[in-house]
Amino acid sequence: MIRRFVFLFLVLLCCGSVVSAGESVPRLPLPVPPTVSSELQRIIAAAPPADWNNHPKDTAAWQTWRAALEQPATAAMPALRKALGVSVERTTLGGVAVFVYTPENLPEDRADRVLICLHGGGYVFGSGESAAQESIMMAGLGQYRVVHVDYRLAPEWPYPAAIDDAMRVYRAVLATTPASRVGVLGTSTGGGMALILALRARAEGIPLPAALGAGTPWVDLTKTGDSYATNEGVDTVLVSYEGWLRDAADVYAGGHDMRDPMLSPIYGNVHDFPPTLLTTGTRDLFLSNTVRMHLKLRQAGVAADLLVFEGISHAQYLAGPDVPETRWYFKELAQFFDAHLQERRERP
Amino acid sequence: MIRRFVFLFLVLLCCGSVVSAGESVPRLPLPVPPTVSSELQRIIAAAPPADWNNHPKDTAAWQTWRAALEQPATAAMPALRKALGVSVERTTLGGVAVFVYTPENLPEDRADRVLICLHGGGYVFGSGESAAQESIMMAGLGQYRVVHVDYRLAPEWPYPAAIDDAMRVYRAVLATTPASRVGVLGTSTGGGMALILALRARAEGIPLPAALGAGTPWVDLTKTGDSYATNEGVDTVLVSYEGWLRDAADVYAGGHDMRDPMLSPIYGNVHDFPPTLLTTGTRDLFLSNTVRMHLKLRQAGVAADLLVFEGISHAQYLAGPDVPETRWYFKELAQFFDAHLQERRERP
Repeated sequence: MIRRFVFLFLVLLCCGSVVSAGESVPRLPLPVPPTVSSELQRIIAAAPPADWNNHPKDTAAWQTWRAALEQPATAAMPALRKALGVSVERTTLGGVAVFVYTPENLPEDRADRVLICLHGGGYVFGSGESAAQESIMMAGLGQYRVVHVDYRLAPEWPYPAAIDDAMRVYRAVLATTPASRVGVLGTSTGGGMALILALRARAEGIPLPAALGAGTPWVDLTKTGDSYATNEGVDTVLVSYEGWLRDAADVYAGGHDMRDPMLSPIYGNVHDFPPTLLTTGTRDLFLSNTVRMHLKLRQAGVAADLLVFEGISHAQYLAGPDVPETRWYFKELAQFFDAHLQERRERP
Repeated sequence: MIRRFVFLFLVLLCCGSVVSAGESVPRLPLPVPPTVSSELQRIIAAAPPADWNNHPKDTAAWQTWRAALEQPATAAMPALRKALGVSVERTTLGGVAVFVYTPENLPEDRADRVLICLHGGGYVFGSGESAAQESIMMAGLGQYRVVHVDYRLAPEWPYPAAIDDAMRVYRAVLATTPASRVGVLGTSTGGGMALILALRARAEGIPLPAALGAGTPWVDLTKTGDSYATNEGVDTVLVSYEGWLRDAADVYAGGHDMRDPMLSPIYGNVHDFPPTLLTTGTRDLFLSNTVRMHLKLRQAGVAADLLVFEGISHAQYLAGPDVPETRWYFKELAQFFDAHLQERRERP
């Protein structure tokens, strides 16, 4: 019944056919691993998107491509919400558009905890509700209230618009919920932003979130990290840094130094960071982004935990609510937040 | 000063030139990642061993190759012990030859804790002290007493000789030290054996070790797991399952079903396993062995933790005591055992 949503998030991240089809990069002939669920095997078997190597010429070209990607994803969200028993409230926090997702039967001990979800999409895709699959699944499968941030996108809004918006929402949440009961999660660009949000919070002298869920985080916008080489052409979602990813980094950075920790948190000081769960896959182009960040956190003494899914490319653990690995992931993530988000002590 | 030891363990695992040189497998042109220490960069830059594709014809050929590999490694161990301030006692436990390594200034709170280390080498290499680099570094860098097991090797001694020997040593250690103060570690074949030891302990009705350190464990002797494909020719240590590894699996299994959990613990029941720290690298041919096992443990509710080193091939985190990543690894592993091996409560 909900099989039709399986590909939507990934479609949004990387697919479409508005601009010219991409060329291929050298790639090993890779069998589909029998070591994952049959649902995931079908996803792994899919060919790379035709447009991984798109290079939009100007803002109008980005907008055309974005609209084509987002339209079917946005259209699918109401049914996904319904299938997972998640209600939505569209509102603003700190002046930023958000979607607040709440599961039908929110467990009582989570009633005063909030998760902020920062979506993926390379800082260039995912406006409105189009990239909310992760947030909705976190609400429905993970049984948490989730604030999904509709932050501004590049190239119209380069750095620091996206993270400024995320910070505004975070500050607004802190007005009603102590940081000790706030978690921040995200995948890809959103995973990087979760880490940057913690850096920004410290720089601005406000409390850090109690825990971070950083899925395959884009922690280095430069082409640095071993898996940009080893998993090039192996990852069937992003395929290569030399596809649209480099363009997205360029238009978001807008000439700003990409090694600024506010763009690439791998270069930041992560001392005293909250517990962080990082997730990636063996074929992920961002495998090195993820494990470099994990090692850096561990070496700084942070309680950082790592999940690496067998056989999957970038962000494919989000494939869909009928994929066993996806369902398990959100349960695991919910347990992680349970362990680190304090319950309210002053409850009457 | 101790640079000359850096390659010894890896040499032992996979090098030599007694038998014919191997052919090459297709492999991407891979740059050396700048995201690791300069010491590790030099190791990553090294070409695969000439003999990764050896296929010894009979027991005599294995013995000739083994002797050639082990001689220089064995010769280097006294200097490694001296450099790290580690003393050695050669004795037997349960009738099995062991080397007991003790650091010069064993911390008092570790005096009544014991680690058993099961060495790597595909069940076919590593006799005597030749594969003791990991044990000696665990003693010297990790500051633990380590019992290094000189278990019997294939093809002379196929399954279950190796794990029988490990069990004998484990039972002998339990005669003087409660399981709650015993940890078991190992890398590659030794990592697999650490997991199998826990399965065997349960099958035999004796207490499981308090914690396991399973470095890039050989948990599946069959060619199953995505990284056997994705990291073929990327891993410069093992290179391919189709090198000597398949032969080693064959001669150890000796016709026994390789999917028996006592050979491939990925097929075992790991419910109620002790806390386990697993370690691998992004280029590791055993990346999937490691992450499959980690996920299986997590899904069974075990406190399983994962480290993935950037840019390294099979077992290269053991490169040597002057490599920063190696030094950090053993500190991390020691902290892990500290957290899970109980202190003696009945101390007078």
